[in-house]
Amino acid sequence: MPETLSVLQNQFFQQLGTEHPDLDGKEVASLLKAAAAAPERTDSDKIFDHILPKRSEKLDQMIKNLKQAYANDIKETVLRPTASGERLEALRKELQNQNVDGFIIPLNDEFHGEAAPAASERLKWLTGFTGSAGVAAVSLESAAIFVDGRYTLQVRNEVDTELFTPRHVSEEPLADWIIETFKEGYRLAYDPWLHTETAITNLLAKISKHGIKLAPLAYNPVDTVWKDRPPQPLALIVPHGEEFAGKSSREKRADIAKSLTKDGIDTVIHTLPDVTAWLLNIRGADLPSTPFALGFATLHQDETVDLFVPKQKISPDLVKHLGNGVRLHEPEEFADHLKNLKGQKVQIDPTTTSQWIVDRLTEAGADITRAPDPCLLPKATKNSVEAEGTRNAHIRDGVAVTKFLHWLSIEGPKGTVDELSAEQKLYEFRSLGDNFKDTSFSTISGAGPNGAIVHYRSTTATNRPLDLNSLYLVDSGAQYLDGTTDITRTIAIGEPTDEMKTRFTHVLKGHIALARAHFPVGTSGSQLDTLARLPLWQLGLDYDHGTGHGVGSYLSVHEGPQRISKMPSNIALQPGMILSNEPGYYKTGEYGIRIENLVMVETVNAPVGAERDLLGFETLTFAPIDLNAIDASALDVTEKEWLNQYHQHVWEKISPALEGEVKDWLKQATRPI
Amino acid sequence: MPETLSVLQNQFFQQLGTEHPDLDGKEVASLLKAAAAAPERTDSDKIFDHILPKRSEKLDQMIKNLKQAYANDIKETVLRPTASGERLEALRKELQNQNVDGFIIPLNDEFHGEAAPAASERLKWLTGFTGSAGVAAVSLESAAIFVDGRYTLQVRNEVDTELFTPRHVSEEPLADWIIETFKEGYRLAYDPWLHTETAITNLLAKISKHGIKLAPLAYNPVDTVWKDRPPQPLALIVPHGEEFAGKSSREKRADIAKSLTKDGIDTVIHTLPDVTAWLLNIRGADLPSTPFALGFATLHQDETVDLFVPKQKISPDLVKHLGNGVRLHEPEEFADHLKNLKGQKVQIDPTTTSQWIVDRLTEAGADITRAPDPCLLPKATKNSVEAEGTRNAHIRDGVAVTKFLHWLSIEGPKGTVDELSAEQKLYEFRSLGDNFKDTSFSTISGAGPNGAIVHYRSTTATNRPLDLNSLYLVDSGAQYLDGTTDITRTIAIGEPTDEMKTRFTHVLKGHIALARAHFPVGTSGSQLDTLARLPLWQLGLDYDHGTGHGVGSYLSVHEGPQRISKMPSNIALQPGMILSNEPGYYKTGEYGIRIENLVMVETVNAPVGAERDLLGFETLTFAPIDLNAIDASALDVTEKEWLNQYHQHVWEKISPALEGEVKDWLKQATRPI
Repeated sequence: MPETLSVLQNQFFQQLGTEHPDLDGKEVASLLKAAAAAPERTDSDKIFDHILPKRSEKLDQMIKNLKQAYANDIKETVLRPTASGERLEALRKELQNQNVDGFIIPLNDEFHGEAAPAASERLKWLTGFTGSAGVAAVSLESAAIFVDGRYTLQVRNEVDTELFTPRHVSEEPLADWIIETFKEGYRLAYDPWLHTETAITNLLAKISKHGIKLAPLAYNPVDTVWKDRPPQPLALIVPHGEEFAGKSSREKRADIAKSLTKDGIDTVIHTLPDVTAWLLNIRGADLPSTPFALGFATLHQDETVDLFVPKQKISPDLVKHLGNGVRLHEPEEFADHLKNLKGQKVQIDPTTTSQWIVDRLTEAGADITRAPDPCLLPKATKNSVEAEGTRNAHIRDGVAVTKFLHWLSIEGPKGTVDELSAEQKLYEFRSLGDNFKDTSFSTISGAGPNGAIVHYRSTTATNRPLDLNSLYLVDSGAQYLDGTTDITRTIAIGEPTDEMKTRFTHVLKGHIALARAHFPVGTSGSQLDTLARLPLWQLGLDYDHGTGHGVGSYLSVHEGPQRISKMPSNIALQPGMILSNEPGYYKTGEYGIRIENLVMVETVNAPVGAERDLLGFETLTFAPIDLNAIDASALDVTEKEWLNQYHQHVWEKISPALEGEVKDWLKQATRPI
Repeated sequence: MPETLSVLQNQFFQQLGTEHPDLDGKEVASLLKAAAAAPERTDSDKIFDHILPKRSEKLDQMIKNLKQAYANDIKETVLRPTASGERLEALRKELQNQNVDGFIIPLNDEFHGEAAPAASERLKWLTGFTGSAGVAAVSLESAAIFVDGRYTLQVRNEVDTELFTPRHVSEEPLADWIIETFKEGYRLAYDPWLHTETAITNLLAKISKHGIKLAPLAYNPVDTVWKDRPPQPLALIVPHGEEFAGKSSREKRADIAKSLTKDGIDTVIHTLPDVTAWLLNIRGADLPSTPFALGFATLHQDETVDLFVPKQKISPDLVKHLGNGVRLHEPEEFADHLKNLKGQKVQIDPTTTSQWIVDRLTEAGADITRAPDPCLLPKATKNSVEAEGTRNAHIRDGVAVTKFLHWLSIEGPKGTVDELSAEQKLYEFRSLGDNFKDTSFSTISGAGPNGAIVHYRSTTATNRPLDLNSLYLVDSGAQYLDGTTDITRTIAIGEPTDEMKTRFTHVLKGHIALARAHFPVGTSGSQLDTLARLPLWQLGLDYDHGTGHGVGSYLSVHEGPQRISKMPSNIALQPGMILSNEPGYYKTGEYGIRIENLVMVETVNAPVGAERDLLGFETLTFAPIDLNAIDASALDVTEKEWLNQYHQHVWEKISPALEGEVKDWLKQATRPI
């Protein structure tokens, strides 16, 4: 533990002892956990009002200092390890203690989502790799790290390749490394909490014929040797009002329970925190950007729910909100709960449920049915209150983005703006909006060549000024109580080259083709993906990411099951689903272009003689698309019509919240072409 | 046996005894089998020259009469059963004899292809159902027939629904019927030759938990009770010259064997007759329209092949053509051959390989690898000789179609043409072409409302005149030695309505969008399907079939693995693959529209600045698209450009083979708009 942190902790303990001599050790520990929860969120402090409602200003300041110290400590010890060598050695010793021949370290935590708290960043801690997807495997003699094409360069910069051999996750996969590394009869260990049933089944199918065994461990050996592991976050869980959710949790539970009855299922296990947040109309603050609470829940045919989260996260308000249909349990009681499902028909989603849970159910003799979580589709298809909420949130977000674009139009050409200062300015404009709680993901603020890095995150080390005659790409979003936003704009700083304009315009053509499409009920997102790519294809260009992802309602900015992608999917788009429309183009080392609006699937009036019910997209995002980057001659009549109409709508929705110079600027920025 | 047939058979035996007293019983039986082979093919007679090269004209005439009588007999006894009741009763008695509780009767034969010889039309024989997809199941008390949405009306017209309850194959599937019908411990029998491993595995997964058993039978009980079952067809197998195939069988075998070595496979079992035809450069005449020989083959790492077909099908020429790398066996020897694969690593495709074969391999202790047949991709990607062959065949075909369209332009409006006479006329024009062997499928000749039936086949019962001011749809193709064709044209007879023109034009817009598309290497057909539908979607219209199927080289008119469809596929399109481009629109009870050309995937020159290698389509089919059915105002500039350029190409390719009136007509029919 670094000195500052231990000094601050000591001061805090002393002050606490003076002010609150009645607190026991467990309560003090909770306060430390609370201090370790996501410091970025505007509401991560609420937990202190719950645990320690009466406290001096002095103690308040000490908590603030402690939070900051924790955040710094996490960055220094977890996010930037310089000690992979000794950590790896300690891990190997522990593997020998546990009498196994190797261990797999995935990036995810036991919820298998996109983000995990610092306490679960075992892969980062061990290897130093900071990418968003990867897995490492360790034997007593060798080790490897597996990443995809996006991270083949980054992994070599961040990881000591003497310790971990970098491998391409699909071309030189984990299973091959295991077969190369271990002999018949060897035992490769894994933490059954960190692998889904599907993942374990697939791995076993490849390695079991070589006589290599997978050994689930009761304790994760990384946790054993990770001496200064941060605590699990502790943030207050709050009710999500019906004025935002549009439907009571009781109704939701009744509807889902009805579908369980129909399918003959007694109990479904909800392992996805956003599903539980939706089902119970609750929100949390354990992680930055995504307002759910980490925890498992089970729903039964009788419409009751068992929820497993630390009691300290629960205020009396929440107990009232949940009502007596929801039984509250400590996370430690989950295992016994699963044991009691003996003889029941229990539904899990094998692609997101930990092997640990499946093992407990199997031991209990439950009859397991494998199917997608029944809440996914109802959560994805927003009701009218959620739809109206997101429309309002998007107008507030559009006002902030417009103010930012106006600011950038003045400051950008002066050469004084850089990626980090732009990101900060955009945050300031957004934070003034009603119902603003947080960003919805880490802002991608990419100047020039950094714009070509699809998952770029600017740091003091990579920060670049916005140069004259370059493109600046900013992909950002916010969490408002009434909706989640996600928008990308690419802005010409000064005068773009002809090539930039041509390619920007072809990205726009793809964006428009998708935005304008009408399609029959039953159409999947994978059937629409090509519309956004076709104009780029004609130039011999393309982009290596999906065209659209689902978006939650004050929840995850990436949600399923819908998406627009060339990856085959049989999920039909349905009215109320929110998706992004974000084609792009990236010229490595030079510039990146992406134009992203969120859209909501809507029914459209079919023309006379129509035989199929038609769907289309309602655009939710309102902010100008940079006319300076467009080659108008490459747009056809219908495309110009769409753009002019879109800009007209931007003007109508956003201008009432503006005045003076910004308003004049918006008038100009939304002029018809 | 009907009297005429038995009389003709007796006359034939007598004449044979006089002319060829040395023939033994087996040889005489072969002649009867040969007479039962597909009478439609122009070369189905060749087998007689092989078995009985010297014969009198009198005998020749008797053979012709016998063939015709067989064809009639097959139509009367197999294709139009009126005796389902007694057949079903006999089958149930046989099931009791074999001590089982039920039996499944699929439509397919043991090759699991689209067509089967009359001897294998067990479903037709038993139920009377003539559709292209279906399955029946019989218990001792009840029976059901399962068909898809295309056949829900037809099945009620053709089948005695007192005997067989019609069910929708996916909404009320076979597995549900089995669970409803049988109790725990019951034994449902099946012929393991007629079900793929995948089908049996899927069925077992659904019914085994109910304690119902699947019992494979050594003899098909339908065959036991089908007294007048036609013989298996016996048609000569002939070499397919390298001037058409473009690559010797020896080279093909070497290439595939190399891939087997790489994958560690000792032997691959080829169950698809078109694969064997491609691999060995041979063709047959067992079935109408598709020139392969029914039979199994195995290829080994040492580049040798074992081929299992009746010896009588093999001429000395063919033995020489195949060389000593191909060992010839009677079909009866296949079981022993599989037994001898003990301990080998054997590859099968579980989706097209009979459970019977898998059972023999399992008994033999072979190590089974499941994967698509390694010949599928090389067969689908035509070499330059095959590509040039198909271009030439398509010009000959285009000349025939153009002559037909010209004839129709004169005769159609007179009101004297009907579906069958038009089909006959088109056949006559085609049969004049060099290398013509057969149609490539049963012609779809649909006037007015019959054009809206996607898989229509005109009969004397359904035949309609081509009325004035209606649409006529004709989907047809031919087998030439150098290529297989498939073309659909929809022709306005008289003056079409505005609605017909609008919808025709929107089908054309989809056809053009697909024809013009450039797309990066790696793109699958499912990614392109939407391009052909989008214009119709904007009118609230669509079509319920795929947009494109693969086409062989003087082989199956439907081949995989490539296709253009909304069904997800990860098969990338590759240069040399031939596909159809055939969007359509069908107004039930009124008219049908389809515009189909064949196209070949080709590399296209990428524009300056391109970063991806691009592919596109070379159009192979050349025949005018009816300008009288087009609403030119609904086409944009690029669409008109495509149409005019296409018609210019039609003129250039087809007019040199024409003269006089037809030529003048073509000039007019291909005028720019």
